[in-house]
Amino acid sequence: MPTTPVIPDSHRDLLDAQVAVLATNGPDGRPQLSAIWFVHDKSDDLVKLSLSDARQKTKNLRRNGRITLFIFDPATPYRTLEIRADAEAVPDTDGALIEAVKSKYGADVRSYDRPGDTRYAVILHPTKVNAADMRG
Amino acid sequence: MPTTPVIPDSHRDLLDAQVAVLATNGPDGRPQLSAIWFVHDKSDDLVKLSLSDARQKTKNLRRNGRITLFIFDPATPYRTLEIRADAEAVPDTDGALIEAVKSKYGADVRSYDRPGDTRYAVILHPTKVNAADMRG
Repeated sequence: MPTTPVIPDSHRDLLDAQVAVLATNGPDGRPQLSAIWFVHDKSDDLVKLSLSDARQKTKNLRRNGRITLFIFDPATPYRTLEIRADAEAVPDTDGALIEAVKSKYGADVRSYDRPGDTRYAVILHPTKVNAADMRG
Repeated sequence: MPTTPVIPDSHRDLLDAQVAVLATNGPDGRPQLSAIWFVHDKSDDLVKLSLSDARQKTKNLRRNGRITLFIFDPATPYRTLEIRADAEAVPDTDGALIEAVKSKYGADVRSYDRPGDTRYAVILHPTKVNAADMRG
């Protein structure tokens, strides 16, 4: 089995950053980027996103799970962590991830949703990790 | 002819930001993201990047010109500008873009290159622009 890429200790603090940039590929194959909230689940050491199925990014990653998450240090924007991953999207039926987001950000992501939207828990299974300290 | 997407006045200041995130697609079709310097050329209102042909991102965008540049306000990371574009890569033979980068950043990008590397001027021709003010 392939080994899971390791996030170096020098950049693990970025897993507690407030904002990341998520890249998915649109239907035309062009990268779509947006700023997102994320949670680092210490129980399994995986990064997870709470996304509504109404958003284009969610549709993109359910069609094509090859995504990339990019985290930077706001104080030192050249210190960055790129996590290329296979996205696993499952309905957040018990709301566990919604609660984890609430715990980190103090906000209920469901307040952004419309009636009928489904919240997905998107779990990132890393395939490659790049930690950088300078313009890359 | 398709019209060029417009960057709204509310987000034009981001064209003077110091850092952007560039997304290209790797040979496996997975997005590759990295922090980069960029120049907004006021003479033609286009965003341009000075990239060495030795870098993977340059190889990616010369193979697949569908790229996306993402700029955020460091002070307000949810204020973002996503520029999806077709990349035109031409050798920077007269060094005009190298000079423009030097003027903005006070550094000579050639100092990062190895002997034999070629500097490309990568010109972004926008196909879609998304300006956001909140978690997107």
